[in-house]
Amino acid sequence: MTPPEAIPRFSVDDRAEIGRAAGDLVTRMRRHGAGRDGSVTRLLYTPAWEAGMEELERWFDAAGLQVRTDAVGSRFARLAGSRPGVVLSGSHVDSVVSGGAFDGILGVIMAACAIRWLGTRLGSPVQTLEVFANCEEESSRFAGNFWGSRALSGRIDEDELDRLTDSDGVSIGDAMLSCGLDPTRVAEARRDDLEAYIEPHIEQGPVLDKAGDDIAVVDRIVCIRGLTVVLTGAAGHAGTIPISLRHDALAGAAEAVLGAERLAKETGAAAVATVGSMEVSPGGFNQVPGAARFTLDFRHPDDPVVDEMETALRRLLAEIAASRGLELHVEHRLGQPGMRFDEHLCAVLEAACVDVGVRWRRMPSAAGHDAQLIGKLCPAAMLFVPSKNGHSHRPDEETDLSHIIKGVEVLVQTLFRLAYLP
Amino acid sequence: MTPPEAIPRFSVDDRAEIGRAAGDLVTRMRRHGAGRDGSVTRLLYTPAWEAGMEELERWFDAAGLQVRTDAVGSRFARLAGSRPGVVLSGSHVDSVVSGGAFDGILGVIMAACAIRWLGTRLGSPVQTLEVFANCEEESSRFAGNFWGSRALSGRIDEDELDRLTDSDGVSIGDAMLSCGLDPTRVAEARRDDLEAYIEPHIEQGPVLDKAGDDIAVVDRIVCIRGLTVVLTGAAGHAGTIPISLRHDALAGAAEAVLGAERLAKETGAAAVATVGSMEVSPGGFNQVPGAARFTLDFRHPDDPVVDEMETALRRLLAEIAASRGLELHVEHRLGQPGMRFDEHLCAVLEAACVDVGVRWRRMPSAAGHDAQLIGKLCPAAMLFVPSKNGHSHRPDEETDLSHIIKGVEVLVQTLFRLAYLP
Repeated sequence: MTPPEAIPRFSVDDRAEIGRAAGDLVTRMRRHGAGRDGSVTRLLYTPAWEAGMEELERWFDAAGLQVRTDAVGSRFARLAGSRPGVVLSGSHVDSVVSGGAFDGILGVIMAACAIRWLGTRLGSPVQTLEVFANCEEESSRFAGNFWGSRALSGRIDEDELDRLTDSDGVSIGDAMLSCGLDPTRVAEARRDDLEAYIEPHIEQGPVLDKAGDDIAVVDRIVCIRGLTVVLTGAAGHAGTIPISLRHDALAGAAEAVLGAERLAKETGAAAVATVGSMEVSPGGFNQVPGAARFTLDFRHPDDPVVDEMETALRRLLAEIAASRGLELHVEHRLGQPGMRFDEHLCAVLEAACVDVGVRWRRMPSAAGHDAQLIGKLCPAAMLFVPSKNGHSHRPDEETDLSHIIKGVEVLVQTLFRLAYLP
Repeated sequence: MTPPEAIPRFSVDDRAEIGRAAGDLVTRMRRHGAGRDGSVTRLLYTPAWEAGMEELERWFDAAGLQVRTDAVGSRFARLAGSRPGVVLSGSHVDSVVSGGAFDGILGVIMAACAIRWLGTRLGSPVQTLEVFANCEEESSRFAGNFWGSRALSGRIDEDELDRLTDSDGVSIGDAMLSCGLDPTRVAEARRDDLEAYIEPHIEQGPVLDKAGDDIAVVDRIVCIRGLTVVLTGAAGHAGTIPISLRHDALAGAAEAVLGAERLAKETGAAAVATVGSMEVSPGGFNQVPGAARFTLDFRHPDDPVVDEMETALRRLLAEIAASRGLELHVEHRLGQPGMRFDEHLCAVLEAACVDVGVRWRRMPSAAGHDAQLIGKLCPAAMLFVPSKNGHSHRPDEETDLSHIIKGVEVLVQTLFRLAYLP
């Protein structure tokens, strides 16, 4: 079998077969970490995660792909080509706590279906293709996410193996040992043979679903910044402290919540700002809140706009604290600069979208993804498929099979161009 | 010794002696349940509470008062008179978690010092005097407060003994057994021999301290109402859900916090409204809040004003829910009508204040107290001493010894009028 020069197209039967295979694999994988409410909790190095990885290995084996496990437990399923260098595609296998059956794992499944289809129909590529079943991205068990793609790019510090612990105090190094992985060999996961990375992923937002689009070509990751804020006032009895003498920390925090929302609206549709957590102490129904601790997360495609948002938020917080007689403590929690994906890969994805005839758009990703780390090793880009109602990180997370099939066809076209016609 | 017809006055030596005795007893009692930060956590039927009650018993014994323990463990220290009927004075021995050394227990100490002084100086009264060392008022271990004064007034339901459990699942009945109290005998605590109740207590607010007053004659308990509110929107990713498509439950809750504060201000200085607790779910820093659960506590001396506040708050909540596309659930949590204390007792307290020459004012109590339950059995009133900086329910809760001495002198004058010149 020699690779054809014509771009491969899916027949009606191909679509049906891809639909069956992808749907079946989604169903199998959601069993690993399944909750009663339809949720999936598949945390790094837990039995559910191990069982999921083994399920994938069996599938890869049956598909005739050569499976390799790296030092941190990520799996690579290889369709060998004749030239050195690898075109990688996939995403992460772990989930958030009480998440859904699509975030991360669907990217692995789409890449697996695409690469199996290419190998079966077209035989060996010029450039080796590999499915990436990344061990961890979500930070849902250990507070150090992108574990798999950081290992790949040599960005894990040795002390993290002991330092990162889960809520039971188990270190990530000990968790690796429990899965038969040797934590002293983490550095061996580093790769220098990657030629390109394409990450298919669910959008995790409502943009495609609302617009009726099938695919997004993701050309960048937005700039993400996070602050932790503590406002401290004076706790007291809810009856006996007159309003005029209060220093109510929650009332100050409420102004910050609404101020952040207003700022995002004023900054424009591409800006978001979120107060996701709010802890009040002492917290009794009959106690004036003495302290409020909350997070501020704000994002925009352009780094300078995020700088301006941070300045405005810090000014607002200082004004609230001054006007209410509260003490203010602001901590920088997270700073992730925006990142542009490889323009050539985006163009290849777009050409594939045009050829397949899907409804598509370009858009930034307002969530972080593995591709932003792997993009530092090699050219990278992403494609999104729609999330029904924009739901993600929850049990009812869903992507229609019709969108999955279209996404696989776009991916097949893209990987064909990169690996068979390089 | 026969009771004098003249009103007893404190000499300089009396004041010094009362100061030493009260200060010493505050110091002894704060050891029972002491935290490292100076806090006191003396919860009902715990070893700290038992030790505190035993400490009081020894003091009462030494003072020549006859001690009796009732069916729920409250102590009564009696200075017997010649007529039937009892004039009771005191407060509660239990504390909140991480509370201070004055709330409740200072009322017991002041009554003890006053009645011992009267017995020592004037001998037996006409009307029997008793110190009330009430077992429980704070609801800090079991969710059913006023345990002692409810027992006294026959307001404990039989099923509460099993139904009320602490955070470890221990029922209040089993907790009684652990202190040698027989839960089947709770009904025996009921009293029908009370002639009057005077409860000395710390203000737990800043009014006296700010004004420089020594004493408040408390003529009523304000109307207190509590709601539990749940706003449910749609959780989602903090990056990927545009602001315009959000149903952010915390943003809605923030409007409610500020709206409640505004309403209290508009209602007038006697009104308070407090959001003391706020729970957000899912609660991740990168998740749009899908639900917010919070409490609303609002108070005013006049019940109809509280009715109006409730109407306004419910209307505000409905407006917030409608404008943000949130689901609203409001639950009535607590409804305590306002209560007027006995006007004759208030007049006796005022006469005592005038005679002693303290700076005093009338004021309502915006906190609930034992006196509101005992006031259903017999005429009752309260006197407040200042709380430094208005602090209460916290380790730095404090009342100056000079104010305690003045309060004891007012109490002596009051109890003299009630028990020696009835």
